[in-house]
Amino acid sequence: MFKNINIFLFICIKISFFSFSIFIPNIYNMAKELTNRSENYSQWYNDLVVKADLAENSAVRGCMVIKPYGYAIWEKMQAQLDKMFKETGHVNAYFPLFIPKSFFSKEASHVEGFAKECAVVTHYRLKNDPNGKGIIVDENAKLEEELIVRPTSETIIWNTYKNWIQSYRDLPILCNQWANVVRWEMRTRLFLRTAEFLWQEGHTAHATKEEAIEEAEKMIRVYADFAENFLALPVIMGAKSANERFAGAIETYTIEALMQDGKALQSGTSHFLGQNFAKAFDVTFTSKEGTLDYVWATSWGVSTRLMGALIMAHSDDNGLVLPPKLAPIQVVIVPIYKGEEQLTEISKTAISIKKNLESLGISVKYDNRDTQKPGWKFAEYELKGVPVRIAIGPRDIEQGTVEIARRDTLTKETLPIEGIEYTIQQLLETIQNSIYKKAFDFRESNTIEVQTYEEFKNAISKQIGFVSAHWDGTTETEEKIKQETKATIRCIPFNAKQEEGTCIYSGKPSKQRVLFAIAY
Amino acid sequence: MFKNINIFLFICIKISFFSFSIFIPNIYNMAKELTNRSENYSQWYNDLVVKADLAENSAVRGCMVIKPYGYAIWEKMQAQLDKMFKETGHVNAYFPLFIPKSFFSKEASHVEGFAKECAVVTHYRLKNDPNGKGIIVDENAKLEEELIVRPTSETIIWNTYKNWIQSYRDLPILCNQWANVVRWEMRTRLFLRTAEFLWQEGHTAHATKEEAIEEAEKMIRVYADFAENFLALPVIMGAKSANERFAGAIETYTIEALMQDGKALQSGTSHFLGQNFAKAFDVTFTSKEGTLDYVWATSWGVSTRLMGALIMAHSDDNGLVLPPKLAPIQVVIVPIYKGEEQLTEISKTAISIKKNLESLGISVKYDNRDTQKPGWKFAEYELKGVPVRIAIGPRDIEQGTVEIARRDTLTKETLPIEGIEYTIQQLLETIQNSIYKKAFDFRESNTIEVQTYEEFKNAISKQIGFVSAHWDGTTETEEKIKQETKATIRCIPFNAKQEEGTCIYSGKPSKQRVLFAIAY
Repeated sequence: MFKNINIFLFICIKISFFSFSIFIPNIYNMAKELTNRSENYSQWYNDLVVKADLAENSAVRGCMVIKPYGYAIWEKMQAQLDKMFKETGHVNAYFPLFIPKSFFSKEASHVEGFAKECAVVTHYRLKNDPNGKGIIVDENAKLEEELIVRPTSETIIWNTYKNWIQSYRDLPILCNQWANVVRWEMRTRLFLRTAEFLWQEGHTAHATKEEAIEEAEKMIRVYADFAENFLALPVIMGAKSANERFAGAIETYTIEALMQDGKALQSGTSHFLGQNFAKAFDVTFTSKEGTLDYVWATSWGVSTRLMGALIMAHSDDNGLVLPPKLAPIQVVIVPIYKGEEQLTEISKTAISIKKNLESLGISVKYDNRDTQKPGWKFAEYELKGVPVRIAIGPRDIEQGTVEIARRDTLTKETLPIEGIEYTIQQLLETIQNSIYKKAFDFRESNTIEVQTYEEFKNAISKQIGFVSAHWDGTTETEEKIKQETKATIRCIPFNAKQEEGTCIYSGKPSKQRVLFAIAY
Repeated sequence: MFKNINIFLFICIKISFFSFSIFIPNIYNMAKELTNRSENYSQWYNDLVVKADLAENSAVRGCMVIKPYGYAIWEKMQAQLDKMFKETGHVNAYFPLFIPKSFFSKEASHVEGFAKECAVVTHYRLKNDPNGKGIIVDENAKLEEELIVRPTSETIIWNTYKNWIQSYRDLPILCNQWANVVRWEMRTRLFLRTAEFLWQEGHTAHATKEEAIEEAEKMIRVYADFAENFLALPVIMGAKSANERFAGAIETYTIEALMQDGKALQSGTSHFLGQNFAKAFDVTFTSKEGTLDYVWATSWGVSTRLMGALIMAHSDDNGLVLPPKLAPIQVVIVPIYKGEEQLTEISKTAISIKKNLESLGISVKYDNRDTQKPGWKFAEYELKGVPVRIAIGPRDIEQGTVEIARRDTLTKETLPIEGIEYTIQQLLETIQNSIYKKAFDFRESNTIEVQTYEEFKNAISKQIGFVSAHWDGTTETEEKIKQETKATIRCIPFNAKQEEGTCIYSGKPSKQRVLFAIAY
């Protein structure tokens, strides 16, 4: 990686002395000003998604357009997740967009959860309106059985697996699908809750219960690894309470993250489905011992909702803050010049720095457009969350320096050009870790343990964050707490210590604290 | 690439002496026997798609399941195309699955072409049947305006571009989308014609007519490059006649390939859309000179239909023949052994070869399953089109050799293990070129120039392949020829020589030959 060990050592020492001056907020930002988080967090989020060119609402109610800059971030997420899925033995496949209506009725609890608010295809042809008013549905082209646009694919996939599985030799099946899904949400928000969204859904089939549980646990760990190391998003892994489980699951595992407004965001789930879908679709296999048994299942998914998590966890009043590992542009170079001659001179240096950075696998944009002023560009890349900005002016060229600005801390410093690519390589890693640390510290200082229901209600009403409390384990208590406070059990953490206590609501005995929060 | 230049030279010399013995067809193939091409080409195709685990029909009429092995090939196509799109300056985005019905009526010819056989969403909710018979459509949840599942996205995208474009500074827009689309085809065939299929659709917006035409031409060349250098599929580039143009296009460019049964397959199209969609959706921009003008458009796409082209162009009666550049497994290693001890010994060599191949970027599977016999494995990998098979037995270990079999020629040879990875690296390239050459020679010997309508009808009735003939340029003639012979004009080739002649049908003067064929 380092061509010269001396340069490497120099940088290591240099980095430890990194002291950035405070960055002066840019007046050019005014044109695209965001609502402040403290003023209206929800409006800030909506502003940011639109103004940073991530996504926008479309002409179709609840469906979004993911704009190129937003999609580029999603592509980076996809590429990394896909790699992690393949490394854990999974393969991709593709199943139909449509599901026959009757399939939903086959798994009793699944139908309640998924076959309600959904897009229903009833006809397969349009025709010219005989009255000359455009086109109308051809009533002669009515489907015998309505088709549902998939809200999730367990049913169509298990109907397919039936033909793929006869013997234990056909198991396990470890398929994933990247797809669009539709859930007819009444209140939608870009990325967080949209009628159509993009996701991946893993659907696996196993010979034993143990193997299926192991798979479901493995995948929630893959999600946690991805969230923490790529999204820079600290998450708490745990199991859902019965009430919050996926419709059709025996166990649902989740990763829960905390947003800057103190609300929790469920960021990925993995389900142990038992034999529910195998029974619903009659999927059996002959075991090694010659007995016939139902197949065991899991499913797991993350979606474009992760874009919402990414935005809400790290960004600030100036715009996006992107962890370098997911930033489409990791470094932007902006020339500060007057006249063609200065630009030519600066461009030589800029292009050379760009080349050196790219040879280290760093993505760089050199913005030499003469249609926009440097200040406008600074504001634009702040808004878009580019982690590092390099500014080069004529004096820099004279002195062999450049100005480096960090997006996450809004600090800047002048540094020598010599070896700048290694400084920046190291800096990107520092920024990645620093964004994670900031989010982690925020979560730690916004997680509170309470002993009584009064304390609980007080914490929830202030929307502090995660509230850790004893719970008697009943759905009844959970629902009453939800009715009274709007807080839900986000998860029963995997790593919670065993601790005798009494339920904050019922006073009954409890052996473990669970995490409550107001959630997205 | 080559660690040792001597080894490189040795191989170069070696390759030129490559003489393969004839491969004996394998009796183990019987279990999964395919219909012969000569017997029933169409049945052969269907058999192959299913038996090679590429795709299968689903429970939903006309919708396919793309199985992991088929999807792995599609993923390789996607990755390469995506790279080529990005290298030519394009970015990805995502637009809604649903299109309001009224959008289709806005572009007069587009509505005729696309708003007829399509999936129509009319309701957004299901409810429990009061009579207890499962779930039914909730009639209270009828959409005010029906939504069409996108058959192609020009309308929704140009409705979106309206808000993205004000000035020449906003142009060009060079977006691509990877998506699923639905066209309610009455007669479907796996990959070739399915109700739902996967594709990419590029949609670009330009300030000038010239730039848009240049873009449309550039993209058909990208497709041709991809087809020839990755699919190993020789294609003819040209323009469509007015009759065969995309609904809403001014010009449609196409790449046309010839299948082994003498039928043509349209493999990709690129459209110059003029200002048609800009006018339909009122998308204007202020030019540098301050005038207001409509925006110029292109669109271009290839789909999972390319899977059909790949299969039909190269495969044989033993199964798939995959060009190495798109093969999910490029090399398979099969051990021939009796007993654990022999396997252990062979595995050492196999794993070492695998590692060496992988270090050259070659994908390798070592199939040491003890549940299947070598003969079964040979047949399986032949069926699946793995380009190179390495067999290693105890005698090979003694003699320091392995047996190498080529899938495309079904020949095999025993070669020294020493430096085998370089031999194979070179062989994969040879196979890629050889598959292309075979398809190219086939097309050349199945393209015929005719002077009279009698000759034409004779050639078409024998389904020879491409028939090159003079045509008077009128839709009337084209349609009559189609009615009488089922042949269509595949394209007016870009590189056709100017040649005075008379139309085979009308006898009117013509300046250029065009290509006719029976088409998929």
